[in-house]
Order: sequence, then structure tokens, then C-alpha cells
Amino acid sequence: MKKYLLTPGPTPVPERVLLASAQPIIHHRTPECGQILSEDIEGLKYVFQTKNDLFIFAASGTGAMEACVVNLLSPQDKVLIVNTGAFGRRWVNITKLFGIEPEVIEYPWGRIANPKDVEKKLKEIPGIKAVFTQSTETSTGVVNDIQTIGKIVAKTEAVLVVDAVSGLGGQELNTDEWNVDVVAGGSQKGLMVPPGLAFVSISQKAWKLVENSKLPKFYWDFKAYKKFLEEKKQTPYTSAVSLLLGLQEALRMIKEEGLEQVLQRHAILASATRKGVEALGLELFAEVPCNVVTAVKVPEGVDGVRLVKMMRDEYGVGIAGGQREYKGKIFRIAHLGYMDRFDVIIGLSALEIALSKLGYKIEVGKGIAAAEKEFLK
Amino acid sequence: MKKYLLTPGPTPVPERVLLASAQPIIHHRTPECGQILSEDIEGLKYVFQTKNDLFIFAASGTGAMEACVVNLLSPQDKVLIVNTGAFGRRWVNITKLFGIEPEVIEYPWGRIANPKDVEKKLKEIPGIKAVFTQSTETSTGVVNDIQTIGKIVAKTEAVLVVDAVSGLGGQELNTDEWNVDVVAGGSQKGLMVPPGLAFVSISQKAWKLVENSKLPKFYWDFKAYKKFLEEKKQTPYTSAVSLLLGLQEALRMIKEEGLEQVLQRHAILASATRKGVEALGLELFAEVPCNVVTAVKVPEGVDGVRLVKMMRDEYGVGIAGGQREYKGKIFRIAHLGYMDRFDVIIGLSALEIALSKLGYKIEVGKGIAAAEKEFLK
Repeated sequence: MKKYLLTPGPTPVPERVLLASAQPIIHHRTPECGQILSEDIEGLKYVFQTKNDLFIFAASGTGAMEACVVNLLSPQDKVLIVNTGAFGRRWVNITKLFGIEPEVIEYPWGRIANPKDVEKKLKEIPGIKAVFTQSTETSTGVVNDIQTIGKIVAKTEAVLVVDAVSGLGGQELNTDEWNVDVVAGGSQKGLMVPPGLAFVSISQKAWKLVENSKLPKFYWDFKAYKKFLEEKKQTPYTSAVSLLLGLQEALRMIKEEGLEQVLQRHAILASATRKGVEALGLELFAEVPCNVVTAVKVPEGVDGVRLVKMMRDEYGVGIAGGQREYKGKIFRIAHLGYMDRFDVIIGLSALEIALSKLGYKIEVGKGIAAAEKEFLK
Repeated sequence: MKKYLLTPGPTPVPERVLLASAQPIIHHRTPECGQILSEDIEGLKYVFQTKNDLFIFAASGTGAMEACVVNLLSPQDKVLIVNTGAFGRRWVNITKLFGIEPEVIEYPWGRIANPKDVEKKLKEIPGIKAVFTQSTETSTGVVNDIQTIGKIVAKTEAVLVVDAVSGLGGQELNTDEWNVDVVAGGSQKGLMVPPGLAFVSISQKAWKLVENSKLPKFYWDFKAYKKFLEEKKQTPYTSAVSLLLGLQEALRMIKEEGLEQVLQRHAILASATRKGVEALGLELFAEVPCNVVTAVKVPEGVDGVRLVKMMRDEYGVGIAGGQREYKGKIFRIAHLGYMDRFDVIIGLSALEIALSKLGYKIEVGKGIAAAEKEFLK
């Protein structure tokens, strides 16, 4: 069976990237690898829209999140977590495990963060060192208003730390212009590279926290990384060289298309997906849907777990179900990374077929028609 | 220029493995990926010669080392580090950064650890929780007597933690039989996979320490990993899927050849390399040379840094120089992973040519003749 990966990470990897990754291994302590690393870092700065320092780790995106916590904070630091879903909860879990008792603003799943709540908390609690949140929250399909939150946090002593693992390269994030001090990213989403690379960008304001941070770290140590990178143009520990080669090719593809066009493409795919599912009478889950993944409420009478399994096992179309308490209650179709209009068509077609098979009454083809109309605009 | 990678990691990746890694990405939360992960873990247990738990992280080998420290230890724990080189020093640096003040037995570079020193220290200092050392110490080319150290440590309350990143799949290490409680490994050495995967095996004795460990961890958390793996047959955070696919193929190759034959091949390649450099009048650096990399003293009158650079830049043959205080004083030729006799011949040939070019008097061909004689045995 032919397989289609419409999950919000890992996302399909372009053939060009797969082939680049399959090149013979080069040694990480050579000028040749140094040049690849430098090109990767410059390319990522373009995607992040930042002039800040940017580091690449051999790790998953969660590694980048842990790196932010252990490099910025010290025991007893006050931090604010703006939690809009499963990945917001991950900030809570990481900080707690490192002995920080975070202040948390928690929103029901599907809702976005209200910047006014952030402003209020920052006023109420003096001395907050860092505000942690998500750009796109993969578990619910929302996109938070990072620009407004950035303006609010910038007026305070706190730094803004944004998990943009699932959003980068798919959802607008102007790191510097929006005053985002620290951004965490990963290779396997909008960057179109296999999983295994984690990225972090760090502003000057954030470096002050790093200088004073007392949480223990070795593998994730930003200061050691910066020193090593500046002196040798290498990573302190062995780079995941094959993934760096893939990233180089993927970043070239993003540059060829242009970041603005890449983001515009994602916006169109997202819009078509939303119109498509709505035309089938389904309801969107996210209060403000993001452009990288569309979360949809499972209609009454349909077994949501079975729907996702059927699409994957019977039709070869991998989408994501709901996580945790939303298992079976929502499903999520990604339109992220190496995707174009016909990936949306495939997703909607598989959905129409599966829903019909499960006995849910829809007019087949109606979702696809709505998506095509959106493309024709 | 055609390039040859004779460095002690990353090592050349077989075409079969490169192609396996270049397969379309599959989602990490699928039964399909679970099967690959399970096959990888089983295959690694064969290479490790263990029935212990074994975990795979998206990280470099250093990540595996940090994972051992933060999962086994608590602040104020007494630990012993048996330090025979740059990677021994890494155990010292990691433990210190996590607030542990280790007891260290330090040997001059090129010497192996004396198991009697370990025995003495364990008697002198009661309550030592863990002994950290290296199997093969990549910086000096020695192989420590892990079997004897294992017997000594097994009689105490302490666990034995061995960094076998550079040795696994090239140098004999019978984890269970030799009483090695925790083994750290990496993908880019004897396992013939690109860098980016880190491995750890954990004995029942070590799990007792893990249960009581109070150092903070999230990404590296063994307990969380075990629970997740047992319940879902998945890794807690996104697996480096393409590398897991490569590892699957590499492990199949190791099984096809047979571990005993793989180790025997490394022994022969190492022996031929040693005979070759000695036939050129050069001196081995390691007191007890390992089978994965041969460290050689740079002869007087030769610029060791220039020698390594010349071999790489002018002849395309990448070998490693000396690290830290041995920069320019030794060079290291690896015979590790996807290597056979003609890789040794290439290394020796490039060495003969480069030494001659640098004006050092040797009889060209003599090193190669010695290696060939060894192969003819």
C-alpha cells in the first residue's frame, strides 16, 4: 500500500533531502563539516528571522526545551508558563523536574492564550525571570499570539521562551521583530528533515540569564557550545552529520521558494483543509487554528480512534488522533513541510472514504470541492 | 579527490545503511516504527552481549554519558573515575558539573588502568556508588581490562559504568558475563551508522541506584523511558527514525557476519596496522593497544599536525591527530566498523607517502608488506 504521512511531525522528507542525508559520512572535526554547520546555522537564522545566536543539538525537540530550562534558570527562580495543551504541559513537567515551581496559566484545550492574562500575571508577580509558551500547540492546532505576548514580555525583566518546534517554517514567527528571546525548534516538522536535530536561538537579553543560571548542564550547555562554535566552527560533541547534510539541502529548498512563499503556501493549505472539513459538516477544534495542523472534532457516533487507525491501516494515510484526554475526541491532519495542495486532497479524500465506511453520513466529494474552490481563489 | 575516512568515529557508513536511512520517513508512534525499535534494541543487546534493559536516545555518545550520571547518582554520592584519557576526563567533567566531587585515579595517557588500583580505592573509600571508566579510550588507543575490573567491582556495592562508545562492535565487551552494569554506546563507531543515536544498557543492580537517584533529569530519564517503552513499544520523545532504519540494516549486517567474526576481523586489522607502522620504525603509543584505533607516536623531526592535515587534504585520507596535550605528538588510524584489509593498506600507504614527502626517512612499501604478511597468517 502506498503511504502518505499527514502527521504533524515527523513530516515527509523531500527526496532531495533524503539523498543529501545519504551522502558518505564526513568527519565532524573538519573544515568541510564546519562549512555545512555554518550554512545550516545561517539558513536557520533566516527561517527563525533572527540575528541571535543559534545552536544545533543532536536531540529531539524535547531536548531543545530541556536545554532552554537548564540554561536559563536557577533553583527558586519564578517562571510563568502559558499552557495551551500537551506541549505547554511539557514546559510544566520539565521545569518541575528541575526543581522550579512554575506559575501556570492554563487554558482549556483548543483555546489560545490571552495576552492580557500574561500581562496581569507579570504585574501581579514581580521578578518573573522567564515566560514559556508555544507558538503553534500541536496537540490542539491553535496558534498563539506571540507578537502581542512578545510586546508585553519585552517591557519586563522576563525573557520570552517560545517552543516553535511544530511551527517553524510553517507558521509566521519573526523572532527578533516580535521580541522572542529564546526559540526552540526541531528538524522533523516544517524544516522537512528527519527527526534528530534540535535548535535553539538565544537573544542578548536571554544570555544574561544564561550567565547567571545555576541549574546543572553539560550536554546542553549554551556557554560551552558558544565558545566551542566561535573558536572552532564545530559543535562541542559529535554532530549528527547526515542530518546536517539533509538540513543543508532542506534550507536551500526553503530559500529557493522564499520564506514568505513557504508561509503563504502553508496558509493556503490550512485554509483549504479547514474549508474541506467544514463542508463535510465537521467542526474545527481550535479557537484560532494554526497553519501547520488542523484539529477537528470527531463527530458524534464516530469512533475517533478507529477513524485514525482505519485511515492509516486501510488507506495508508497517516494522520494524528487526539492526545491524552482528547484521545478519540479529535483528529489532526497536518499540512506541514513538504506538502502541496494534493496532499490536502489526499487527506480529505481518505477522510471522506473512512467516514462513509464508518457509517457517518456525508456527501462524498463535498470536502474536496470546498478545498478546490479555496485553491482556485 | 576520492575520500577515505579512517577516523575513530564517525566511521564510514555502508551503502546498505545509507540507503536504509534514506527510506521515506515513518511516524514514530506507529506499530511499524515500534517493530523497528524493538529489532534495533534486540540487535544492540546482541552486540552488547546483554539481557539488560537497553535504551536508544536521539543524542551523541556524550548524551549517553550524561544520561548515566544523572540517572544513577544523587548529590554527595561518592564515585570513582578511572581516567585513562580525554574521555575519562569527560566522566570527571560531567560528574563535577552535576555537583559530584569524584574520586579519580588518573593514568598518564597511553597507559591502561590497573585493576589493583581500583580494588585498593574501593577498599579505602567505603560507600562508593559507581565506578566510571572506558572500555577503549579513543584518545590514546588503549583498551582497559574491563573483565578484571568487573570482577572487582561486582564484589562491592558499587556499579560499574563503562563508556564503550568507541569500542562496541569492534572490541570484545561481554556486558553481562563481565559484570558491567551500565554501558554507554553511540551509533557512529563500530555500529556503522551515522552519528545521532546514543545507547545505554542498565543492569538490575544499577536500577537500584536509578530508583534512588536525585539528580534532575527529563530528556534522559531512564524510569520514564522504561515505562513508556514497555507500555507502548515507543520512545518517550520523537525517535531519530531515519537513524533507527539505518541501525536496523547495520545490525543485520553484524548478525550476518556474526559478532565473533566481526571482532576477529577488527583484531586482524588492528594487528596488521600495528605491524605496518612498526615496520616503518614508528612506535605505538598505547601500553595495551585496542582493536579499534591505533595510536602512533609522531617520530622526531616530523610535524604531527602537518602530517594529519597532509594525509587528509592532499591524499584524501582522514585520520585523527592527538587531542589536547598530545596534539602533534601522536596520530591515530582507525580500523573500526565498515572496514577491511584494504582500508588498512590505504591508511599505511598514505602514511608512507606523507612521511616521505615530509622528509622522514622510511623505506616505502615496508609498512604495507608487514601488514600483508599479517593478513597472510
